[in-house]
Amino acid sequence: MNPRASARPGGRSARVQQSVHQAVRELEAELGRDALTVPLVAARAGVTPSTVYRRWGDLRELLSDVAVERLRPDEAPADHGSLRADLEAWAEQFAEEMSSAAGRTYIRDALLGDPEHGNAARCSDYAVEQLKAIGVRAAGRGEAVPDVETLLDIVVAPLMYRILFRPSDLSAAYTNRLVEAAVGRTLPAPSPKS
Amino acid sequence: MNPRASARPGGRSARVQQSVHQAVRELEAELGRDALTVPLVAARAGVTPSTVYRRWGDLRELLSDVAVERLRPDEAPADHGSLRADLEAWAEQFAEEMSSAAGRTYIRDALLGDPEHGNAARCSDYAVEQLKAIGVRAAGRGEAVPDVETLLDIVVAPLMYRILFRPSDLSAAYTNRLVEAAVGRTLPAPSPKS
Repeated sequence: MNPRASARPGGRSARVQQSVHQAVRELEAELGRDALTVPLVAARAGVTPSTVYRRWGDLRELLSDVAVERLRPDEAPADHGSLRADLEAWAEQFAEEMSSAAGRTYIRDALLGDPEHGNAARCSDYAVEQLKAIGVRAAGRGEAVPDVETLLDIVVAPLMYRILFRPSDLSAAYTNRLVEAAVGRTLPAPSPKS
Repeated sequence: MNPRASARPGGRSARVQQSVHQAVRELEAELGRDALTVPLVAARAGVTPSTVYRRWGDLRELLSDVAVERLRPDEAPADHGSLRADLEAWAEQFAEEMSSAAGRTYIRDALLGDPEHGNAARCSDYAVEQLKAIGVRAAGRGEAVPDVETLLDIVVAPLMYRILFRPSDLSAAYTNRLVEAAVGRTLPAPSPKS
């Protein structure tokens, strides 16, 4: 369990997180990321370096945390009238954002954090929340909906795999074919316990 | 294009690579990875630090290179008599190796390298070589065979996604279900140009 998860929202803990994250983003834009150090970030954020070390452990973990926040979707998936259309639009946008230069950097940074701290898992949770929202809306229209773990396997995983490991053309034609394979799988389908 | 790719095999370049890689593995086992530095590795390998910097750039890139070598499969996929059985055995072993503590560390290290240098892509190429060998053998038995990009999407990508982003139970029951979905896809199927 990530200790940060139990921090009270809105309290001092949240204010520290906000000012430190902002300091990282500002200094990265001004000086480039190779110039970042914990003392520099702490000074800009108006906290002591030991506050940063106590909370994040080291610079790598802090950068990982900031990257995950940047990957948080800022809005609910758009309503295009059907499960297939919603998934197609979502997958196309997801592929575009994650395969951009900024997206790739944030994903790699997120993966640099200690896996025990769950930053990479938060990336996956963001996708799950969006896919669940699409599923709930589709079910409300009376549509059959694939299990969210199935959507991760068939739609999300190939995109992330190709972004990280295999230079590929992630065109809308490709993401649409992934969605097509997924919408045919509305019965109980491969999904590991997670 | 990675400059290393043009190094003559068997020459001084190969000897340097071998001794530096071995120095990293030894020192990591003796001192732990946090103690590694380029001067330390160079001294153990009997080369100058500048040789290491010239060839790998920095420690992170060197560790990434060493990690990818450790992920290289040491044998051809076993012959179990059919495409499905060969894929099931391969996927189960792949999931087991990659989700082990060592496997996870090597994958993360591989991803730490500069994407331009292609270390992550070499991981994917290893899987492709093994899947192609299974496919060639199956075709030799007269079996219909899915495209290798389809196998990456349906079998390999979900495993890597879950290992990196989503704590999951990667049991044989799960890998068998992925293989089952793939062997039903022997006609032209979703595959991006890569």
